Amino acid sequence: MTTQKILLTQTVQKGGCAAKVPAMELRKILGLVKFPPTNNFLLVDGSLFDDAAILKVNENLALVQTLDFFTPIVDSPYLFGKVACANALSDVYAMGGMPQTAMAILAFPTATMSNEIIAEVLQGAADLLTEVKVPLVGGHSIDDDTLKFGLSVTGYVHPEKIWSNAKAQQGDILILTKGLGTGTITAALKRAEVTEADITEALNSMTQANACLDLLNDDLASAIHAATDITGFGFLGHSVQMAKASKKTFQINVSDLPILPQAKEFLQKGFLTKAHRSNREYVAENVHYNSIDEILALLLLDPQTSGGLLLSVKKEKAEDILTALKKRFVKAAFVGNVIAEQKSSVELK
Amino acid sequence: MTTQKILLTQTVQKGGCAAKVPAMELRKILGLVKFPPTNNFLLVDGSLFDDAAILKVNENLALVQTLDFFTPIVDSPYLFGKVACANALSDVYAMGGMPQTAMAILAFPTATMSNEIIAEVLQGAADLLTEVKVPLVGGHSIDDDTLKFGLSVTGYVHPEKIWSNAKAQQGDILILTKGLGTGTITAALKRAEVTEADITEALNSMTQANACLDLLNDDLASAIHAATDITGFGFLGHSVQMAKASKKTFQINVSDLPILPQAKEFLQKGFLTKAHRSNREYVAENVHYNSIDEILALLLLDPQTSGGLLLSVKKEKAEDILTALKKRFVKAAFVGNVIAEQKSSVELK
Repeated sequence: MTTQKILLTQTVQKGGCAAKVPAMELRKILGLVKFPPTNNFLLVDGSLFDDAAILKVNENLALVQTLDFFTPIVDSPYLFGKVACANALSDVYAMGGMPQTAMAILAFPTATMSNEIIAEVLQGAADLLTEVKVPLVGGHSIDDDTLKFGLSVTGYVHPEKIWSNAKAQQGDILILTKGLGTGTITAALKRAEVTEADITEALNSMTQANACLDLLNDDLASAIHAATDITGFGFLGHSVQMAKASKKTFQINVSDLPILPQAKEFLQKGFLTKAHRSNREYVAENVHYNSIDEILALLLLDPQTSGGLLLSVKKEKAEDILTALKKRFVKAAFVGNVIAEQKSSVELK
Repeated sequence: MTTQKILLTQTVQKGGCAAKVPAMELRKILGLVKFPPTNNFLLVDGSLFDDAAILKVNENLALVQTLDFFTPIVDSPYLFGKVACANALSDVYAMGGMPQTAMAILAFPTATMSNEIIAEVLQGAADLLTEVKVPLVGGHSIDDDTLKFGLSVTGYVHPEKIWSNAKAQQGDILILTKGLGTGTITAALKRAEVTEADITEALNSMTQANACLDLLNDDLASAIHAATDITGFGFLGHSVQMAKASKKTFQINVSDLPILPQAKEFLQKGFLTKAHRSNREYVAENVHYNSIDEILALLLLDPQTSGGLLLSVKKEKAEDILTALKKRFVKAAFVGNVIAEQKSSVELK
C-alpha cells in the first residue's frame, strides 16, 4: 500500500510553520489594507493573522476563534493530521478556552495522492478531536499541487476568565508545559537524517493537545494569570511578546528548560531553519542573553510546531498547578519568574 | 504597477469551484474516516465538507459556521477577494443566519506575487465585510505555489428560525435571487475570450453578498420556509438536493429563470467546465427535462460561483417578498412552485 511508503516531508519544499508567510512581510501587506471596523463585542481582535480572536456573546459566554493550516512537518499522513489538529486547537487552549467545533481546511493533489493517504490525514485529526470531544462540523477541500491541512476552531470561554497574554503579574512563576526542540528535530527529519522511529518523543509532544483546564480545579485555574502557546517565534519570541504585553520582565532559568531528546545534538550539527535567524533578529533588542551557550540560545529561538503553553501563575499555587499538569504533560517544568519591567523583556540566566 | 497587468485566472490551472475536490471523490475519502462523535448541540452537522453547520448555544441562539476558499475565478485581485468573500458568507445567509466574524485563509507565492496584489485581494474581501458589518478577526497565511483565498465565517441564527433546505412546503413559490451563468462566463474569461470589462454584470452578481434578512420584516422573513444557495452543483443540482430533502417536487418554469448577459451565447460557443457534465450525471435520475432546449439545460447545470439563493416561500407572501428582494437583487424572480413529491424531484417546463 502506498501509505507505508510515502514520506510527506519529501513532497513539499517547506514544512509546517516554515511555510508561514514571515511576520514582517505580512505586516507590510496588512499595512496596505483598510480593514472592516471592529465592534464592542470583539474582546480580542488585535493581531490579525496571529492569535485567536474573542467575541463576547453575553455576560457569561464568549467565542474563541482561530484558524491554522500548513504543509507536512512529519512523514506519516496520520501523524501529520494529528499534529496539525493539535496545533490548531492550541490557540483556543492558550486563551483559556474549551474547543467546541472544528472545520477542516484541506488541499491535496488528487492526481498523485491516494484517497487512503488523505483519509489517514483526516483520521489523525479525527482521533485527536475525539480525544478532546470536539466534533468536526464541516470544512472545504480543493485540488492542489501539494498537501496542506489545518482546522478552523471555535471554543467557548467565560469573558472574565480569558487567559490574556497581558496579565502576567510581578512575583508570578512561569511554567512551560512541553519540551523545546521540534524545529531542529523536524529539520533533521526533512533532511532524512532521522526517521520518525528515532524521534518518537518529539512526535508524541507535537500530537498532544494543549488541554489543561480539565486537570485543574477552579481555584488552580484562576491562579493562571496569563498564557500563550509557543509556536513559530520560539520560546524567546513568544516570551518577549507576553512580557511586553504584560509590561513585565521574565527571568528565565535556562538550566530548567525542558528539552526534547536529540534537540541539542541536532542544533550542534547545524540542522537549522530560516526561523532560527529571523527569530533572533525579532527578539534582539528585548533579550539579555547573559553569555549563555550558543546551542542553548538556538534552542530558545527554535521555532516550535504545536509547542507547549507558557503559563504565568500565582506563586502560592505554582506547585499544585505543576503537579496537576504533570499528570498529562510529562515535561512540564518551572522555567522562571516574573519581575518588574526592566530594560530587557526577557533575562536569561 | 504590476497590479494592473496580472491576470489572476492565467496564474492557475483550475479556477474557483472547479478546483474543488469532486463530491464523489470526497465521499470515498470520507467513507474511510471514523469521525469524532457529534453531540446534542449540533443542530446541523450532516454533510461534512459541504454546507454550514449549526451549533446551538442556548434557546435563543445558535452559531452557523462555514468555510470556503479557492483559486482565482476572475482576473482582478480586488474582485477575486470580493467574490471569495461573498461566496464564503453565502452559506451563512442561506441558513437564515447573520454573519458575525470572518477569518481569512490565504495562500500565495511570496516570491513572485507582489504585496500590493495580495493587499488588493484582502481589500476586496475587507470592503464587502465592511458593507455587511462583519469584522475580520484573524486568519492564517502561507507561502504557496499558487494564490488561494477564502474565509471561515461564523454567524448567529435563532434555533427556531433556521432556513433548512428540508422544509419546502406544497404550494410554496420558488424565488431565485441572482441570474445564472457565472460558470460559462468565467470559463470564457479563463480562455481569454473576454475581459472583465465585458462581463460587468456577472462580476457585480458574484461580488454581491446574499444578505436578504435586512430587506424583510419579521412577517415576510418567517414566510421563507426553506433556502439554499446555488453554487457548484448548478441550479438543478441544488434544486434536486432541496426538493429531495423536503420530500417534494419542484416545478420550474424555465422561461422565467433570470440569466446573466452572454451566458447563453457562451454556452452555445462551447465554453464549458467539467462540472457541466458531472452535474448532469449527478441529477440525471431526478430531473424530468421535458425536452427543453440543450442550451437551457446547460444553463441549468452551469456551476455557479457566489450564485443566488433559492427560496421556497409561502404563496400569500411571495409577491411582497419578491418586491422587497428586488430592491437589492435586480435579477430576482419567481422561477417555479412546489408540489407533492413525484417520480422526479425537479420537473422543467
